Amino acid sequence: MLIVMKSTSKETEVQQVMDLIVDMGLTPLPVPGSLRTAICITGNKGTVDEGRFLQLNGVKEVIRVTKPYKLVSREVKAEDTVIEIGDVKIGGDNPVQIIAGPCSVESEEQTVEVASALKEMGISLFRAGAFKPRTNPYDFQGFGKEGLTILSHVREKTGMKVVSEVIDTESVSIVYDHVDILQVGTRSMQNFSLLKKLSKLDKPIMLKRGMSASFEEWMNAAEYVMMGGNHQVILCERGLRTFSQHSRNTLDLSVVPLVKSVSHLPIIVDPSHGVGRRDSVRPMARASVACGAHALLIEAHTHPEKAYSDKAQTIDMEALKAIMRDVDVLGELEQIVV
Amino acid sequence: MLIVMKSTSKETEVQQVMDLIVDMGLTPLPVPGSLRTAICITGNKGTVDEGRFLQLNGVKEVIRVTKPYKLVSREVKAEDTVIEIGDVKIGGDNPVQIIAGPCSVESEEQTVEVASALKEMGISLFRAGAFKPRTNPYDFQGFGKEGLTILSHVREKTGMKVVSEVIDTESVSIVYDHVDILQVGTRSMQNFSLLKKLSKLDKPIMLKRGMSASFEEWMNAAEYVMMGGNHQVILCERGLRTFSQHSRNTLDLSVVPLVKSVSHLPIIVDPSHGVGRRDSVRPMARASVACGAHALLIEAHTHPEKAYSDKAQTIDMEALKAIMRDVDVLGELEQIVV
Amino acid sequence: MLIVMKSTSKETEVQQVMDLIVDMGLTPLPVPGSLRTAICITGNKGTVDEGRFLQLNGVKEVIRVTKPYKLVSREVKAEDTVIEIGDVKIGGDNPVQIIAGPCSVESEEQTVEVASALKEMGISLFRAGAFKPRTNPYDFQGFGKEGLTILSHVREKTGMKVVSEVIDTESVSIVYDHVDILQVGTRSMQNFSLLKKLSKLDKPIMLKRGMSASFEEWMNAAEYVMMGGNHQVILCERGLRTFSQHSRNTLDLSVVPLVKSVSHLPIIVDPSHGVGRRDSVRPMARASVACGAHALLIEAHTHPEKAYSDKAQTIDMEALKAIMRDVDVLGELEQIVV
Amino acid sequence: MLIVMKSTSKETEVQQVMDLIVDMGLTPLPVPGSLRTAICITGNKGTVDEGRFLQLNGVKEVIRVTKPYKLVSREVKAEDTVIEIGDVKIGGDNPVQIIAGPCSVESEEQTVEVASALKEMGISLFRAGAFKPRTNPYDFQGFGKEGLTILSHVREKTGMKVVSEVIDTESVSIVYDHVDILQVGTRSMQNFSLLKKLSKLDKPIMLKRGMSASFEEWMNAAEYVMMGGNHQVILCERGLRTFSQHSRNTLDLSVVPLVKSVSHLPIIVDPSHGVGRRDSVRPMARASVACGAHALLIEAHTHPEKAYSDKAQTIDMEALKAIMRDVDVLGELEQIVV
Repeated sequence: MLIVMKSTSKETEVQQVMDLIVDMGLTPLPVPGSLRTAICITGNKGTVDEGRFLQLNGVKEVIRVTKPYKLVSREVKAEDTVIEIGDVKIGGDNPVQIIAGPCSVESEEQTVEVASALKEMGISLFRAGAFKPRTNPYDFQGFGKEGLTILSHVREKTGMKVVSEVIDTESVSIVYDHVDILQVGTRSMQNFSLLKKLSKLDKPIMLKRGMSASFEEWMNAAEYVMMGGNHQVILCERGLRTFSQHSRNTLDLSVVPLVKSVSHLPIIVDPSHGVGRRDSVRPMARASVACGAHALLIEAHTHPEKAYSDKAQTIDMEALKAIMRDVDVLGELEQIVV
Repeated sequence: MLIVMKSTSKETEVQQVMDLIVDMGLTPLPVPGSLRTAICITGNKGTVDEGRFLQLNGVKEVIRVTKPYKLVSREVKAEDTVIEIGDVKIGGDNPVQIIAGPCSVESEEQTVEVASALKEMGISLFRAGAFKPRTNPYDFQGFGKEGLTILSHVREKTGMKVVSEVIDTESVSIVYDHVDILQVGTRSMQNFSLLKKLSKLDKPIMLKRGMSASFEEWMNAAEYVMMGGNHQVILCERGLRTFSQHSRNTLDLSVVPLVKSVSHLPIIVDPSHGVGRRDSVRPMARASVACGAHALLIEAHTHPEKAYSDKAQTIDMEALKAIMRDVDVLGELEQIVV
Repeated sequence: MLIVMKSTSKETEVQQVMDLIVDMGLTPLPVPGSLRTAICITGNKGTVDEGRFLQLNGVKEVIRVTKPYKLVSREVKAEDTVIEIGDVKIGGDNPVQIIAGPCSVESEEQTVEVASALKEMGISLFRAGAFKPRTNPYDFQGFGKEGLTILSHVREKTGMKVVSEVIDTESVSIVYDHVDILQVGTRSMQNFSLLKKLSKLDKPIMLKRGMSASFEEWMNAAEYVMMGGNHQVILCERGLRTFSQHSRNTLDLSVVPLVKSVSHLPIIVDPSHGVGRRDSVRPMARASVACGAHALLIEAHTHPEKAYSDKAQTIDMEALKAIMRDVDVLGELEQIVV
Repeated sequence: MLIVMKSTSKETEVQQVMDLIVDMGLTPLPVPGSLRTAICITGNKGTVDEGRFLQLNGVKEVIRVTKPYKLVSREVKAEDTVIEIGDVKIGGDNPVQIIAGPCSVESEEQTVEVASALKEMGISLFRAGAFKPRTNPYDFQGFGKEGLTILSHVREKTGMKVVSEVIDTESVSIVYDHVDILQVGTRSMQNFSLLKKLSKLDKPIMLKRGMSASFEEWMNAAEYVMMGGNHQVILCERGLRTFSQHSRNTLDLSVVPLVKSVSHLPIIVDPSHGVGRRDSVRPMARASVACGAHALLIEAHTHPEKAYSDKAQTIDMEALKAIMRDVDVLGELEQIVV
C-alpha cells in the first residue's frame, strides 16, 4: 500500500504517517520523487485498513500496490527514473548512451589505449571487468584490485565514467572506491546478501538479468536494492539460457517495452553477451534501441583479436562507430514518429 | 558440392554435367539464379571427385558446400532471393512489407471490412487463417473451406494478395487454389510429408520456425521445400518456447542477421505471436525491422475485441498505422546509415 | 459434463440422453467402460443445465468435468485402461512390458535376426521404424513400404507383435495393415489431421510426447484420438528439449505419476531417446519402472555398432537382459511395498 | 596432468615433484586417496613436458586429464569418495541415506518435534533452513542465527547430524559452528567467492545444481571447492528450469548415472524441489534410488499443513515411512541384480 501526501503536507505529518505504520507492526519505506511525497507500506500479510491513514492530516490518497515488488513499480512511482553519472544521464527521454570497453581490464597501457579511443569517438562511459566470475577455476579470473587501480587511472586520464562488476560482498567497498556504476552480473542476480550490501551505497547499480530469471524475479532483485535505500538501479537484459544454440544466449528484447510499462527504472541491453557473435552485435544493437532501450552495453576493443576474454563477440572501433551513427539516426526517428 | 557453369556454357554442356552426376549414383539439383547456372550434387556420403567435373566443357568451377542444407545456403546461391507476389516483392533490398489481418477468417462481412481497411491504408498482403490448428479438440477449428471461399472474395474485392495456413497434405490443393502464399505453421515445421508436397507447388511458402526448432532444423525444413523444386521460401520467426513466461513466446530476433548471413532467402518476423501482448507489438515490430527483417506479419483487426482468436495480441488500425510510419522512417534510416 | 447411467439403464434411455444432447446443439461422446455406461458432453461454451438430464429415466448422476480434455481424464473414466495386443497387456496392474528393437527396419535378414533374439529372451513386442522422419532431407529416410513388408515377415516368423511409426495421413492405411501398434512420433504429436485419422482405427496408438509439449498439450493430443472413437491410446515420455546438453533430451519422469493421477491411460517411457547414451539406458529404465511406467520402449540390436541410425543409444542383448532382470525384481518390489 | 607416485615413494620424492611443478610456473594440487599418492598439475596453457617428471625418482606414471575439471574427475581419482559424518556414510556402496526435515527451521518446539519423530523412524540426518534465500524481499527470510541455535539443540537432543544452507561468505563461520554438512543452494552454485571460502573448511559441502546449470558448470563448481582443499563434496540434483510448468522444476535424473561415470563424488537427489508436489515425491524418490542416487533429500514434517514454506511439497511421516521401505527393498534389489 502506498500513502501519498498532499503537496502542502508538513514534515510532522509525514512523520505521523511513518509512526502509525510502525505502530501497526509494519515497515514504512519513503519513496523519493520530485513530484510528490509518498510512503510505501511493506511487511503486511493481507490488507491494511486504509481508513486509519485517510483520516490523518496531510494524507492525499491511499493506493493499493498490486505487484509483489513495490518501489520498482510504476504504481508507486509514475515518472521515469533518470540516473545521473556526472553529466551523463541514463533513462527517461535522454539520448541513448553507449557504455563500451573490453570484457576484462588488461594491461594499463592497453586499457588506456582503448578508453582513449572511445573517448575520442564521443563515448563517456567505459566498461571493463577487474573481477571476472569464471566457470572454470583454472581460467583467468581478472586482475582484481590491480585492475581497479587501472580503472582509476582511466578515469583520471580520460575523464570517462567507469562501470565494473562486483562479484562478492567482500569487494563491495573497494569496487565502490574505483568505479562510478557497480555492475551485478547474471550469476549474482539472486545473490541477496550482495544486493543488500549494494542497497546501502550512493552509487548506481547496474543489475543484469539472471540467465534463467523470470521477469518477476528480476524486478524483485531490483527491489532488494531499492528496499535498502539505493534507488539508482539500471536494469540490463543480456540474454537467456534456452535450448537454442546458434547464439551464445537468446536475447529477450521483449522485456524492454515490458520494463518500461511496469517500472520507472532505466532498461539497457547488452547485445554482445546476448548473441556472442561479432557480426550480430550491430543489428541487435539497432533492434535494442528501436524497441526503446535507454543505453547499450557493448564489448569493444581497439584490437579485438588480442582481447583477454570474449574475443568472439568483441567489435572494433569502426563497428562501434557504425552503431553510434545508427543510434543517432534512430534518435531522430524517435522524434519524428512519436 | 556445387558445379558452377561458365556464363557461355551451352544447354548440352549442362546436360552432360547432370548425366555424369546420375552416372555416379548421385542426385543433381539445378540451382535457379539470374546470375549464373549451377547444379548442386546431393546424396553423396563422403567426398566426390571434383576432377571429373572440372574437365567437362562449360564447367567454370566446383565449390564444396559445407552446410548440411544446400539450396538454402548462400554457398550455393550468393544473391538474395526476392519473392514476387504480383507487384509485391519480399526480400533483398526491397522496402519492408507488412502482412496484416485477423488471426482467423471470420464472417465474410467482417473479413472484407478488415481487408478493405487495410487496403485503404496501403497494405497489399492480407493474412487470415481458415484452417486453425488448435491444442484442444473442442475449440473453434476455423471455417475451413468456407473460410477459403471468403478469402477468394477478399482477393477479388480488394485486389490484395492473401496468405493462409495449410495444415495437412489433404488440403494443400484447395488452399493453393484460394491463396497467394501458403503458410506452414510452427507445429508443422517438421511435417516432412507436407513440406514435400509443398515443394511441388509454384506458389511461395512461408515457413514459420518451430517453437523449439534449432536454427539448423529450420534451415533443413526449408531445404525440404527447395529440394522438390519450389525455391520460393519465406522464413518467419515467431518466437520460441522457453522457461520465460512473461511473453507468450520468446521472440528470437538474433536469427534475422544470422539468416541473412547464411541464406539468400527472405526472413520476416511475426511480433504478434512472438510476444502475445498488444502493447508490445509495435516496439517489437520496430526492433524486427531495425535488425533487418524483410517483412512483418501482424495480427490486426478493425475491432480487436471482437476477434475470434488471439484477441490479446491483435492490434487496431491506429496502432498498425503507427507501425507503418515506423517502417517508413526506418527505411530512410537504412538509406542514411548503410 | 458427464452423464452417468444407472447400471439398470436401458439402451432406449441412453439414446434419450444422446438425443437431448444433440437437441441442445452439443455433441455426445459415449465413454466405453466395463463398469458403467456414461456419455460425455462436449462442445459447450459455459455451463449446461444439469437438471434437464437428472430428470431423465436411467440417469444416475451428472458430473462436471473440470479438465479441458475429457475422455483422457480420470474424471470421466476412473478405472485404468488396459491395452490388449493379442495376449500382451499394457496398463493397469499388469507386469511391465518391454518393447524392443532397432531404430530402423534394416535388411530382412538383419531385422529377423534381431527379432528372433528378442523373442528368445521372452520379449513379445518388436519396434522398428519403416518411415523415418529426418531433419536433413538428404539423410536415410527409412525403407518405407518395403520396411513394412519386412515387419510383416517378422510377425509371421516370430509371432511377435509389432510397433512402428506412422508419419503422415497418406500412409496410415498401409502402416495399419502391417503393424499392431501405430506410433506417433514426437514431431507429429500436434499433427491434428494425423491424430484425427488415427482416431478412426481399431488398433492402439502410441502417442509420444512432443519434445516441447506441455503436459496439457499432450493430454489434448490424446483427446483428439479418443474423441474420434479410438480409446486405445498409450502415452510415451521420450524426453524434452531443454538448455541441458549432456543428454540428447531431458527425460521428464515426473510425468509418470502425474499421468497416472490425472488419466486412466497407460504411460510408458523411452529411455533410449530420453538420454541418447548407451550406458545410461539401463539406469533410466530402472528409474522409469520404479516410478510407475507400464512399459519401456528400448532401442536394442544384436550388433549395435551396425545399426543404421541412433547407434549411440542402442544397447546389445546382454544389456537388455540386465534390464529384463531389473524389471522382474522391481515387479516383486511392487508387491512387497504397496 | 596427473603425476602418480609409486606406492614405495618417499615424502622427499613427492616434494621433489611438487617443487618441479612450482619451478615450471604451475600449481601442484595433491590428490588425497587411500590407494595411491598423486599430484595434479593445474594452471598450464597447452601441454606440459611429461618426460621431466618420468625421470624423477618415485614417479610411477603421468596421466593426461582431458576434462576441464580435474579433482572432481575419475581420471584423477578412480575410487568412489565416501563422505563420513560421524557414523553415517554417503557414497560408494553404502546404503542409501535419507536426509529429511522441514524446509525452514521453525520454533524450537516444532523443530525438535519433527527431528525426534524422524530420529525414531531411524533417520540420522536432519535438514532445515535457517537462512532462506527468497525471491521477494518482503517474504520470510528464515530465523537466521536463532535458527542455527535451534539446530544445535536438535543435534544435542537427538544426536542427529544436521544439514543447513549457507547463503553468503559472512555467515560461513557461524553456519560451520552449528551444522555437520553445509548446503550450497541452487542460486549460489556459481557464487565463486562462497565456494572458495567453503573450500577451506573441514566439513562436507552439499552442492546443489544450479537451476539452469549445465553438467560441466556443476562439475566446475565442485572443482572450486576441491581446489581449495575441501574434498568432501556431495552433489545434489534438484531439478531444472525448463518450459515445462506441470512440475515446479524438471527433475533431471539422467545426471545420476552420468555423475557416477565421470566423477568419484557422491550424487544425491532432492525430489521435493524437483517436482514440488507432495503426491509425486515418493515415485520420484524411488526413481532416484533405482538409477543410483547415494541419498535422498526430502522435505518432511509432522504437520505438513503447518510448514512455514514449501507446504505443497512437504510430506508427512507416513509418506516418509513408505519411502524408507522402498529404499530398503531397492537396496536388496541392488544386491540381487548387480
